[in-house]
Amino acid sequence: MVIDELHDRCGEWLRGNGPQSDIVMSSRIRLARNLADFPFMRRCNDIDRANIESTVRERLTGSPALSGLNFFNVADLNTLDRQLLVERQLISRELSNGEGARAVAIDSKEQLSLMVNEEDHLRIQVMKSGLDLDAGWEQMNQVDDDIESSLTYAYSPKLGYLTACPTNVGTGMRVSVLVHLPALVITHQIEKVFRSLQKINLVVRGLYGEGTQAMGDFYQISNQITLGKDEAAIIDQVSDVIPFVIDYERKARQFLLDEKQNDLFDRVSRAYGTLQTAQQISSEETMYLLSRVRMGVNLGLIDNLEIPAINQLFLRTQPAHLQKIRDTSMDTDRRNVERAIYLREQLKREEN
Amino acid sequence: MVIDELHDRCGEWLRGNGPQSDIVMSSRIRLARNLADFPFMRRCNDIDRANIESTVRERLTGSPALSGLNFFNVADLNTLDRQLLVERQLISRELSNGEGARAVAIDSKEQLSLMVNEEDHLRIQVMKSGLDLDAGWEQMNQVDDDIESSLTYAYSPKLGYLTACPTNVGTGMRVSVLVHLPALVITHQIEKVFRSLQKINLVVRGLYGEGTQAMGDFYQISNQITLGKDEAAIIDQVSDVIPFVIDYERKARQFLLDEKQNDLFDRVSRAYGTLQTAQQISSEETMYLLSRVRMGVNLGLIDNLEIPAINQLFLRTQPAHLQKIRDTSMDTDRRNVERAIYLREQLKREEN
Repeated sequence: MVIDELHDRCGEWLRGNGPQSDIVMSSRIRLARNLADFPFMRRCNDIDRANIESTVRERLTGSPALSGLNFFNVADLNTLDRQLLVERQLISRELSNGEGARAVAIDSKEQLSLMVNEEDHLRIQVMKSGLDLDAGWEQMNQVDDDIESSLTYAYSPKLGYLTACPTNVGTGMRVSVLVHLPALVITHQIEKVFRSLQKINLVVRGLYGEGTQAMGDFYQISNQITLGKDEAAIIDQVSDVIPFVIDYERKARQFLLDEKQNDLFDRVSRAYGTLQTAQQISSEETMYLLSRVRMGVNLGLIDNLEIPAINQLFLRTQPAHLQKIRDTSMDTDRRNVERAIYLREQLKREEN
Repeated sequence: MVIDELHDRCGEWLRGNGPQSDIVMSSRIRLARNLADFPFMRRCNDIDRANIESTVRERLTGSPALSGLNFFNVADLNTLDRQLLVERQLISRELSNGEGARAVAIDSKEQLSLMVNEEDHLRIQVMKSGLDLDAGWEQMNQVDDDIESSLTYAYSPKLGYLTACPTNVGTGMRVSVLVHLPALVITHQIEKVFRSLQKINLVVRGLYGEGTQAMGDFYQISNQITLGKDEAAIIDQVSDVIPFVIDYERKARQFLLDEKQNDLFDRVSRAYGTLQTAQQISSEETMYLLSRVRMGVNLGLIDNLEIPAINQLFLRTQPAHLQKIRDTSMDTDRRNVERAIYLREQLKREEN
């Protein structure tokens, strides 16, 4: 696999075929891990960083659960390729913007990603389409065991896995579910739902993680606490609450269908119309409009589009993807024009 | 001619075939006149009003310039019919909402309208498509002479024609030109133009006259002063300045084409897209969007629509017209849905 093939692929989180995938885009588990033989990242010099990177790469090559992984030397990638990986949720912005030796290993399905030298020595991520934390955990457990058989983790019998930031100590685990909640946004119930989630120590974030704005009515719901609970309990905590969120969103959609059908159909239809006729459009507005169209398709208000096609458009209209597709570097103004052209092309193609 | 035929007709001010009709919708002249033998309206009782109405009707029937006029007893018309006449600019809101005996006489081309018992006993209006005040004045002069040969006007040798409101004393004339200035609005120059017009005693109003908001980038430019100048001087005052306004608008359009083409095309195209896909839409938003589309057609950015068709849509999407077309009474919500259906039907038809 080479980077230049990625932008044409679907990517796990947009496949749209997992359980409850009308509302849940993806389920993601990540573990923060550090190697016992090296200082934490903040105390590493350039040589330490290079040693960590080469150690991980060497030890993991040939490991059964990790066979077939593609290693990318992130420091060697250009800005566009790094941004492409961020847009695909395969690396974090921190790893992309970082300095010194750093890497990512990715499987061909883009379900597994292993960041080296991010905030911790290792950040392992497993992603599944739809709501499927059990499958995610099963794969993650296997991967974690495999890695631990080749590398010695920094571990305290009392605290658990040791991490650069105290908030990750213990399991080092974050469980995130990416949900699409347009009806809760439209009916102004989203804040109420978030407050309820905060009360039970769940965190709500935007699409691209900490500190990012919610875009296109997408929200990541994840656990706050990593210490004092085992992995199964953390997964249960998130797994138990997501069905309620799904249920609220479904009820809000039904309410809109029953009580505000003209309003709802109008929003959806105008969003679709704007995507088909805009001559320049930002990625934020594209997300916002695609979100409305996605809900419309799920509710049967638009019948000539398929969810996977819309999911793909969310990704392929992002700045790096668009530049990869057009095979040229473009500034913001040019991208906004090219994005509008691309959307018109694709929507026309989908319609036929 | 019966009222129920009107909504299917074009109407003079939307014909779109007069001079400069890409920017000037219509030229309108109105005279305020009162009969010497009756008190001003505010001092009339019901019997006076009825007498004025019957006197005018009787004396003018058979008058050469007024042959073929259709008299409508406004007091007998239902709300919808009165509103239809307001939307077509054939009667004022004041006449529509007034009480007691009142009437309007209209020619079949809708160029001439004669209101009886509005603020003055007589309000005579002549309307021409595009910028054509000379033709308007020629017709008006003839009509005014004809009426004066059958009726005695209240006239003072010192002041001129006497009117209910002192602002109309003298010539009793208002000259109005309805202009479409979307590019001056987009480039934020419209206020500057208005301030210049005010300095030379011209007034700028919305589409439906005094106290109405500008809608769809349409503005009426008219004289303020009726006293101390003769009719020709008032017409010259307006005629002389309109070419400058047209020129400013043309320059603003050219600037947008040269410097902001993506932006301009985007606005126009999105407006068209929204008109084609909205599932409910107010008449205000319809005006706003049609205004953008109208400019787009005039600038060659949309090539499958014609100006007269767009002009017609401005009128036929107004509340009373829409109800007449659908032949049923509808509340606002229902109208907003039906308006969207009508727009989609018509735009699809125009495209084919």
